Amino acid sequence: MTLRVGVIGTGMIGRDHIRRLTRVVSGAEVVAVSDANEQVAKEVASGLPDATVHVSGEDLIGDERVDAVLVCSWGPTHEAYVLASIAAGKAVFCEKPLATTREACRKILDAESAHGSRLVQVGFMRRYDESYRALKDVIDSGRIGAPLIYFSSHRNPSVPEHYTKDMAIVDTAVHDFDVTRWLLGEELAAIRVVAAKANSLGKDLQDPLLMILETASGVLVNVETSVNIRYGYDIRGEVVGETGTAALADRGLVVLRTGNQVGVAVPEDWRQRFIAAYDVEFQEWVNAVASGEGATGPSAWDGYAAQVVCDAGVEALYSGDRVEIDLGVKPALYG
Amino acid sequence: MTLRVGVIGTGMIGRDHIRRLTRVVSGAEVVAVSDANEQVAKEVASGLPDATVHVSGEDLIGDERVDAVLVCSWGPTHEAYVLASIAAGKAVFCEKPLATTREACRKILDAESAHGSRLVQVGFMRRYDESYRALKDVIDSGRIGAPLIYFSSHRNPSVPEHYTKDMAIVDTAVHDFDVTRWLLGEELAAIRVVAAKANSLGKDLQDPLLMILETASGVLVNVETSVNIRYGYDIRGEVVGETGTAALADRGLVVLRTGNQVGVAVPEDWRQRFIAAYDVEFQEWVNAVASGEGATGPSAWDGYAAQVVCDAGVEALYSGDRVEIDLGVKPALYG
Amino acid sequence: MTLRVGVIGTGMIGRDHIRRLTRVVSGAEVVAVSDANEQVAKEVASGLPDATVHVSGEDLIGDERVDAVLVCSWGPTHEAYVLASIAAGKAVFCEKPLATTREACRKILDAESAHGSRLVQVGFMRRYDESYRALKDVIDSGRIGAPLIYFSSHRNPSVPEHYTKDMAIVDTAVHDFDVTRWLLGEELAAIRVVAAKANSLGKDLQDPLLMILETASGVLVNVETSVNIRYGYDIRGEVVGETGTAALADRGLVVLRTGNQVGVAVPEDWRQRFIAAYDVEFQEWVNAVASGEGATGPSAWDGYAAQVVCDAGVEALYSGDRVEIDLGVKPALYG
Amino acid sequence: MTLRVGVIGTGMIGRDHIRRLTRVVSGAEVVAVSDANEQVAKEVASGLPDATVHVSGEDLIGDERVDAVLVCSWGPTHEAYVLASIAAGKAVFCEKPLATTREACRKILDAESAHGSRLVQVGFMRRYDESYRALKDVIDSGRIGAPLIYFSSHRNPSVPEHYTKDMAIVDTAVHDFDVTRWLLGEELAAIRVVAAKANSLGKDLQDPLLMILETASGVLVNVETSVNIRYGYDIRGEVVGETGTAALADRGLVVLRTGNQVGVAVPEDWRQRFIAAYDVEFQEWVNAVASGEGATGPSAWDGYAAQVVCDAGVEALYSGDRVEIDLGVKPALYG
Repeated sequence: MTLRVGVIGTGMIGRDHIRRLTRVVSGAEVVAVSDANEQVAKEVASGLPDATVHVSGEDLIGDERVDAVLVCSWGPTHEAYVLASIAAGKAVFCEKPLATTREACRKILDAESAHGSRLVQVGFMRRYDESYRALKDVIDSGRIGAPLIYFSSHRNPSVPEHYTKDMAIVDTAVHDFDVTRWLLGEELAAIRVVAAKANSLGKDLQDPLLMILETASGVLVNVETSVNIRYGYDIRGEVVGETGTAALADRGLVVLRTGNQVGVAVPEDWRQRFIAAYDVEFQEWVNAVASGEGATGPSAWDGYAAQVVCDAGVEALYSGDRVEIDLGVKPALYG
Repeated sequence: MTLRVGVIGTGMIGRDHIRRLTRVVSGAEVVAVSDANEQVAKEVASGLPDATVHVSGEDLIGDERVDAVLVCSWGPTHEAYVLASIAAGKAVFCEKPLATTREACRKILDAESAHGSRLVQVGFMRRYDESYRALKDVIDSGRIGAPLIYFSSHRNPSVPEHYTKDMAIVDTAVHDFDVTRWLLGEELAAIRVVAAKANSLGKDLQDPLLMILETASGVLVNVETSVNIRYGYDIRGEVVGETGTAALADRGLVVLRTGNQVGVAVPEDWRQRFIAAYDVEFQEWVNAVASGEGATGPSAWDGYAAQVVCDAGVEALYSGDRVEIDLGVKPALYG
Repeated sequence: MTLRVGVIGTGMIGRDHIRRLTRVVSGAEVVAVSDANEQVAKEVASGLPDATVHVSGEDLIGDERVDAVLVCSWGPTHEAYVLASIAAGKAVFCEKPLATTREACRKILDAESAHGSRLVQVGFMRRYDESYRALKDVIDSGRIGAPLIYFSSHRNPSVPEHYTKDMAIVDTAVHDFDVTRWLLGEELAAIRVVAAKANSLGKDLQDPLLMILETASGVLVNVETSVNIRYGYDIRGEVVGETGTAALADRGLVVLRTGNQVGVAVPEDWRQRFIAAYDVEFQEWVNAVASGEGATGPSAWDGYAAQVVCDAGVEALYSGDRVEIDLGVKPALYG
Repeated sequence: MTLRVGVIGTGMIGRDHIRRLTRVVSGAEVVAVSDANEQVAKEVASGLPDATVHVSGEDLIGDERVDAVLVCSWGPTHEAYVLASIAAGKAVFCEKPLATTREACRKILDAESAHGSRLVQVGFMRRYDESYRALKDVIDSGRIGAPLIYFSSHRNPSVPEHYTKDMAIVDTAVHDFDVTRWLLGEELAAIRVVAAKANSLGKDLQDPLLMILETASGVLVNVETSVNIRYGYDIRGEVVGETGTAALADRGLVVLRTGNQVGVAVPEDWRQRFIAAYDVEFQEWVNAVASGEGATGPSAWDGYAAQVVCDAGVEALYSGDRVEIDLGVKPALYG
């Protein structure tokens, strides 16, 4: 009954997920690892009771003991590992991005469709966060009427040196795009990107950005990315409906009254904010795969759609224009 | 139509009320002043368009131009000025205390009863605070069912050198006692006082104190005084009803997100917290007196009851016992 | 020392301001009224101690007893009354709009400039609201760094039958435009307007709207108007700065815990939300005019700028384009 | 490495913990069950992969496959099962109460002391709740200075028919007692109990109650139990320190603006409020026992102390007196 997982990529994220699968999640074990740096893979394996080290991801995927594959390697390698997993008929959890181009994502859609059932899940963890889930429940309950506008603010205290201006869209806002599609239950159809006066703390970037998206039915989505805002890692969202609004609440656990202020803490980084969501994400994935139900979380189609919206966003950032988003035909497998 | 007020006592509070009557409140002017320090009274008068300086409060009360009297002098003098105002048939607003002993308060009740209509109002400004008024509205609406417990916290950042331990009851908690009687619409019947471990920032006092009072119908009232708590001047209150609770909200105007905290400001002192309540208190007093309706705010009976509860509280503080509060007969004038 | 005010227009708003000047504000009286409907003006005057009824606004302005003029008549008449007041050298408080066209506003700027000192004040009451003032204090304090984005949400439960889609800009968002200019201390330079999916509760309008404005220095301003949102009259604003954010707090006075919810009340209408701001606005106007300081609040230039932004907004609504805002030369009087 | 647990008592709570151990917690399996109703035990076992049904708890404890025992049976049976587990040298997790009398608890302390290391853990799950843990972190950080008062409110929407007035202390407030000892890191030394006016929704009980406790160092602890308050299951706590206060925050995930209210949800029952705490409690217990570290959570001493405080509380309820709490000598094993 225990799901035997093989992990490709044992960098920081891979190791964190290995810890999660072995010490937090019920019903899973890690039986194989591989990494571009074989030495690292060996060290990781030595801390596990019974894990084989493979020289390549492909070998790992072919290992008979491996029931399901977890891809945590460098983005450009995702396409090949996901396709190989599908070819082997094995469930595969792929950290974002699903692949780095629209065309590569399409190949995966085609391969999974040919296989005939869902094997692929993409790591959009926000869908497993209890706050976002409660927000979706409120929307779906009709308590605020039909959604008309969604405000999403994505604030990071700072970004690393190598962060480029495209990354505000491709790495940062991509989470807002996915969670919007999921919350509203429809596709994004157009995007504009407008840069505000630059934050002097990150001046080579265009930061903050405001992105105005439109869904297929006309809901407006307003995404703010502020990636040098210092005060905390703050993920905010408010849905404006016909008769009311619903917003993610601040999550501080203790109301502190000191120094003429009363308030709660804001998370310091994404780990602190989303650690519980990762735990739920993996428990649900393990349960679904182990039960034979297959992948039930974000699909290859979701990974593809996110990629297409990001492409349009980057185009809009450089052109200043409103760019339409054309997803093309949705294969039947994705309902 | 303008109410001509004479002010006895031109210390800090007297001067603040003169500013209020002449520059904030509509329909009033200050036509006479007096003070134990005549020089101060003269300086204050020189800033007013047409104010007479009297050598005594009694002279001021006798001045024909004075329609109504405001008593802001030292506590022990209140009794005489209030009685003289009643004798003159003039409306009188007396800052707390109404008088410094139970017997003196009784004399005032008798004099006003003999006069036959209300002339006296006591300065319990919390009844004019918009938050307390909203709290009373909720209680009276029945939205939380019958009140069963009331928690009242009175927190000061610090107290002056001359503050003695009795003052936590007589000067500080007296406001909680009055506002409780008004919120719940009934008298207090017993009091216990328990001292917590002493705050090292004010160690010669017994601070904080917890007072457990019972109303005539059995509602429990829990008053906390913390008078060295540094973080702010924070007045809190929560009524526990049969089906819900209602509490004074924090009143900060701006939600600030900085330095990994999100929250609002807490007032620094009582002026900041209650300045608007004083303005409303005086506007309503001026309106009521000018219209011939007489005093409609806290009555001499309220001043008397507060005094009797304070006496019982001091006794309970020293004895450690539960002390019953016996107000005696309530004159018909006070309904 | 009492400021004698003449009121042109005794409809609902005029009568409310007359009540305010005579019963709330200190230092003012209403000595003259006029209205297109003379019968109404007479009824209003009959409730005042000593007020003359004039057959025209021009007569009222010419009345020697009138120190200052308050214009509350129908928008298209404002220009003439303001110009006549300037010609008479009298202070004039004009409810919005200052005038209904850019050209008319320019005439007023020219006339007041020729006069050589400020006489005109425009009724943008939000600048007197304690929450907005606290927000401006935080911005000016530097506690959140330089402002980069401002989110302003203007939500009405419903609008009357005669409300047209332009009015979301000209009547509703105009307040957001003015308060943005004041909060940020700079001019608006461009505007885009995007309509969301229409609220079915007000479907002939384009409601809600999202307006994306840019200030002269590049701050982005995001104005949401939702004028059929049912849940309440809710005015929200959040400034995103370089290192933190500051937002208008909810203003409910009582935290209620009932029926598995904990929260505070949202205002039902604009009167409830801004009544205190109107009081402060008029007290400060009376003080400034009576002291000879002249008008210190929103100026004719502010009224003109609001008009020009509204014109651009309406153009952007119909064209779908980004429209630049050109205010032209600012007369020296407005520094 | 997997911890093999035997579960005594397969009623509602036992079954919930079995689900938790097998489907939520990592590193455990359930290998044996027993219940007074053997039929129920068999049904539960049939849903598990490999669980033996024992006719008695003693047999289960003696089963070689059982590494650790979980006691979820009826309270009066706890003493015997815990003592048998100690005799067998096996770790035992006992739901509250540890035993139903002070003397029985003492026997357990003696037995465990004779064994020489900790085997017993008592089910006080609040210590695993993230909010209480954050509150303890704030206290320990010194950010609010030394604690002086602790307010704890325990509110239930309703209680079952069989709930008696002692149960407000023994079943309800016992959690407040334990969490207070843990938060403050010291023992409770005295207790008074005062009944408020009775809630008409539960009139045969004395409800609500106010309990005023004193710790060894003089901190006052104010426990309110309101067990018919309808609006929700609401666990509140505020520590008043020398320079500030810290309180459990409301935990609603979505801020809803509807019907002129803005706020968040309050939990409906204890499951909703503490489900995550139970998960953490068992994961940490499994980790500690499996690692050979033994029980690290609430000890037999904590179970004993809770029982002694409850006894004093019941005495205080009936007598109306202040009752001192005498724990006697603390065995060396409990530090």
